[in-house]
Amino acid sequence: MGLAEGYDAWILTIGNEILIGKVVNTNLAWLGRKLTLLGYKVRRGLIVPDDVDEIAWAFRTSLEAGAKVVISTGGLGPTFDDKTAEGLAVALGVKLELNEEALSMVKRKYEERGLELTEHRIKMAKIPRGAKPIPNPIGTAPGIYVIWNNTHIFALPGVPKEMKAMFEEYVEAILRKVGPKIFFVEGSVISRGVPESTIAPIVDEVMRRCNRVYIKSHPRTSEAGEFLVELHVTASSPNREEAKNEIRKAIELLVEKISGIGGEVEIREIST
Amino acid sequence: MGLAEGYDAWILTIGNEILIGKVVNTNLAWLGRKLTLLGYKVRRGLIVPDDVDEIAWAFRTSLEAGAKVVISTGGLGPTFDDKTAEGLAVALGVKLELNEEALSMVKRKYEERGLELTEHRIKMAKIPRGAKPIPNPIGTAPGIYVIWNNTHIFALPGVPKEMKAMFEEYVEAILRKVGPKIFFVEGSVISRGVPESTIAPIVDEVMRRCNRVYIKSHPRTSEAGEFLVELHVTASSPNREEAKNEIRKAIELLVEKISGIGGEVEIREIST
Repeated sequence: MGLAEGYDAWILTIGNEILIGKVVNTNLAWLGRKLTLLGYKVRRGLIVPDDVDEIAWAFRTSLEAGAKVVISTGGLGPTFDDKTAEGLAVALGVKLELNEEALSMVKRKYEERGLELTEHRIKMAKIPRGAKPIPNPIGTAPGIYVIWNNTHIFALPGVPKEMKAMFEEYVEAILRKVGPKIFFVEGSVISRGVPESTIAPIVDEVMRRCNRVYIKSHPRTSEAGEFLVELHVTASSPNREEAKNEIRKAIELLVEKISGIGGEVEIREIST
Repeated sequence: MGLAEGYDAWILTIGNEILIGKVVNTNLAWLGRKLTLLGYKVRRGLIVPDDVDEIAWAFRTSLEAGAKVVISTGGLGPTFDDKTAEGLAVALGVKLELNEEALSMVKRKYEERGLELTEHRIKMAKIPRGAKPIPNPIGTAPGIYVIWNNTHIFALPGVPKEMKAMFEEYVEAILRKVGPKIFFVEGSVISRGVPESTIAPIVDEVMRRCNRVYIKSHPRTSEAGEFLVELHVTASSPNREEAKNEIRKAIELLVEKISGIGGEVEIREIST
């Protein structure tokens, strides 16, 4: 798994609604999966409230840790508590300024609907100096892209539909270009009838024998109830076939050893 | 909202599966809601991989920030990558040691099923020196409770059913005792037909006039499509009726002003 060295990704989530449990953070899961499949190592997730200092802290912490990619979601709209652009500017030590390209994006969106530019709408075109606006094909608030030293920073909106469209139409191509040339492959084994703690030494042994593979066990119900454990097997490699072969070998060993102690085993699809 | 001063809560999520997007972080949302209703201010969420140093970083960062409560989920089971106890011990600068009370909890669970204590099972009874084990009524891994200076730290398992049971049967009573004596009240207004950016100055005005109320707008669909915005209104107060009245007043003002500009408004239940 050490192949993605130098390709750490950090995901920042901005918004009180996530912290107070009003909204479940599906954006982080979606981005985490995308980044992982692109070969990045998602290192940390930080969730902060709608507060300039807290947002600045989140960006600063990821920059200081040397992240290759930082993606934030949330805090880009027209209301008083949309503070991501300001927090990012503070973290970078640059001014927030009206960006002409961003302004024309916002203007066009409202003109299409016969609406005027108001102060709250113009606010969405203010981004940190040196940053580029990311077009929003669905909503009105542009995203923000800035390269800082060697880190690529993307600020996307919190509305999942907008965030996903902007990621797929703009961010993904950049991540492919600057990212590692490796493939991420995964497979799963479901085991029934054996407690997770009995499988633990088997996992240790298989990981020793297949050292490019990472196995994580997920107890699907409690050990006190019926025993159901999913073993999620992952590998990264510059060579897709090699990664697949590693996964296959690990899965074969798991199946052999768990069956050997009386477990009922089922292999799930191996995918890339 | 400044009433919960000194009652910051931090939620830590431990596990690669969250970062790679295999599992959506519902634990954080559930805990965030519980903590908010108990009057705590959920300040930050940190998500780290199954790595001792990263886990230690997360605990250390929340302790240094002066959190009143830190709750972690994940990393407490029998496998090699369950490293929360170790990471917490590193953060506190104390040794990990076999806790007799924890050991008897684990032992009892396996004896009930006629299973021996193995090395991987005994591992679950090793907790930082000075910490107390939290009984797990559903699974086998005990949780960990430790008071550090003025911070109450709880480490709970990642399996939602176990985490919730342990929170409700053990953690919640402690949080009530050491927490603020305040009530959290909320209400919602759904607005149709007006863009979020048009509502933004109304939100500003209502928050100026009802200064104990916090209003967050959530665009439910894009501004480019049909306009649907939820305004989530919250207030905290030592007096529940006072908080409710503040919410009612803010909602009345929102309804009046949004209707005044042609919006269609619907009030959702006001709850505590």
